[in-house]
Amino acid sequence: MPHAPKSPTLPVDAAQLQDLLATTFAPWVQELDLVVRAVQPGEVIVALPVGARHVHAGGVMCGQTLMAAADTAMVLAISAQLGGFRPMTTVQLQTSFLRPVPKDAGEVTLVARVLKPGRNLFFGEIECLLPDGKLAAHATTTYALL
Amino acid sequence: MPHAPKSPTLPVDAAQLQDLLATTFAPWVQELDLVVRAVQPGEVIVALPVGARHVHAGGVMCGQTLMAAADTAMVLAISAQLGGFRPMTTVQLQTSFLRPVPKDAGEVTLVARVLKPGRNLFFGEIECLLPDGKLAAHATTTYALL
Amino acid sequence: MPHAPKSPTLPVDAAQLQDLLATTFAPWVQELDLVVRAVQPGEVIVALPVGARHVHAGGVMCGQTLMAAADTAMVLAISAQLGGFRPMTTVQLQTSFLRPVPKDAGEVTLVARVLKPGRNLFFGEIECLLPDGKLAAHATTTYALL
Amino acid sequence: MPHAPKSPTLPVDAAQLQDLLATTFAPWVQELDLVVRAVQPGEVIVALPVGARHVHAGGVMCGQTLMAAADTAMVLAISAQLGGFRPMTTVQLQTSFLRPVPKDAGEVTLVARVLKPGRNLFFGEIECLLPDGKLAAHATTTYALL
Repeated sequence: MPHAPKSPTLPVDAAQLQDLLATTFAPWVQELDLVVRAVQPGEVIVALPVGARHVHAGGVMCGQTLMAAADTAMVLAISAQLGGFRPMTTVQLQTSFLRPVPKDAGEVTLVARVLKPGRNLFFGEIECLLPDGKLAAHATTTYALL
Repeated sequence: MPHAPKSPTLPVDAAQLQDLLATTFAPWVQELDLVVRAVQPGEVIVALPVGARHVHAGGVMCGQTLMAAADTAMVLAISAQLGGFRPMTTVQLQTSFLRPVPKDAGEVTLVARVLKPGRNLFFGEIECLLPDGKLAAHATTTYALL
Repeated sequence: MPHAPKSPTLPVDAAQLQDLLATTFAPWVQELDLVVRAVQPGEVIVALPVGARHVHAGGVMCGQTLMAAADTAMVLAISAQLGGFRPMTTVQLQTSFLRPVPKDAGEVTLVARVLKPGRNLFFGEIECLLPDGKLAAHATTTYALL
Repeated sequence: MPHAPKSPTLPVDAAQLQDLLATTFAPWVQELDLVVRAVQPGEVIVALPVGARHVHAGGVMCGQTLMAAADTAMVLAISAQLGGFRPMTTVQLQTSFLRPVPKDAGEVTLVARVLKPGRNLFFGEIECLLPDGKLAAHATTTYALL
């Protein structure tokens, strides 16, 4: 089994990660309509539109959507670290919900970064930011390469 | 501000919680197609069909779906504790992914239970079980009544 | 590198785990004065005395002690799963604090169990129980064998 | 019941927080020998000496110590936010362990910051940094004012 490279080999760009979203994730997850805004090794910035289908009866974006987007963004950040997608699995993901996302917020910006790449385990952090820059949600996570 | 009742007042049944799923949650979350199987105060059992739209390129149910189902099931369990739905927000949710859910698994069974009801804060736990009874995922969570 | 056995090879008993506490853990952790009450493969029951040195100005056992005891108990449970101690590291540990432990509670009972043993990763859960059987704290955790 | 001030009223300084460590925390926690290095509203920097009593048989600082220090530092950060200590309880604390702390590391630097102060709930994050600035551990947490 080949070991994970300890540092990125080939840089990936936003178009490649956008393509990854369209080909690798479940159709239901693709309905998050995530847009890759920026990429660097181990970090991605992703926009999550606050669509009506993700708003619950309380008039705010549902937490399920934020968690799903955080998990998805982290896969992109790890792919950006590795120089491309590799099969991996989420080991755990912990999300804290700090502020509601109003239905008219437009979009949430997710910043996902690898805190530590490992041979097998990757640790990461995801910030879900409101348009004013305040934290809506904050997640930390561990992934294992398969 | 009225305080949360410390114990359930009126029992809710599966039909009421099924109706809650159809009216209170975001449309995207309703696409989990959760089925309420059993209810008792502070605990619900919910079936999550392993539909093709929730399976990623690796051939297993995506973690995003399991997290969303866990969060949703917990809202039902708290409603079952309180004798009906009350506005609440997820404070945090931590999920560990123990075993993959194969695309042909049929359904995942979620058992969501309130570990401690409080005046404001509710603690809970959700087990996501494979058909053979083994844990696919395990979540713990805190909710705040609004 | 030898792989971890997938199932326990030799059963360990309470005396062996008590000895492990005295030889493998940091001196500061030994001051938890944990007592191994029962052992079976992948599960241990441990008593944590509510000593005055672990009580803060609010008159309750401090959360730091409960987290430390939970982490320690899990190492014992994994050792009980593996048939003996093997070098490992905590990947993550999430603790929820449900109820205070009064300074005169006598002792807290911890039940630590392996939820899933793996080749490299172990998932576990720890309950910290008050004398009346109610949950004081609840932790979930991931370990990696080294 | 008086509400928590939404913003700091009176600034606290390092000496006041150092005094808080000596008077409010459990004696066992005081043995962390934390030193408050810097304070600003909602954020503290604390040094944790890597003493021999906190090193386990594997030759690294034990995770129990890092979790305890993280929890303690967060209480100080919240006190720095509030302009002084107020009774509070940890609701949950999730710690990820990224890199070992060698026994000769000298000290670990903890940066604890309030991510969101609330009327009742406070969210925070704690970084445990090695002397070279790399993350040894990373924690996120929720507190409730009592």
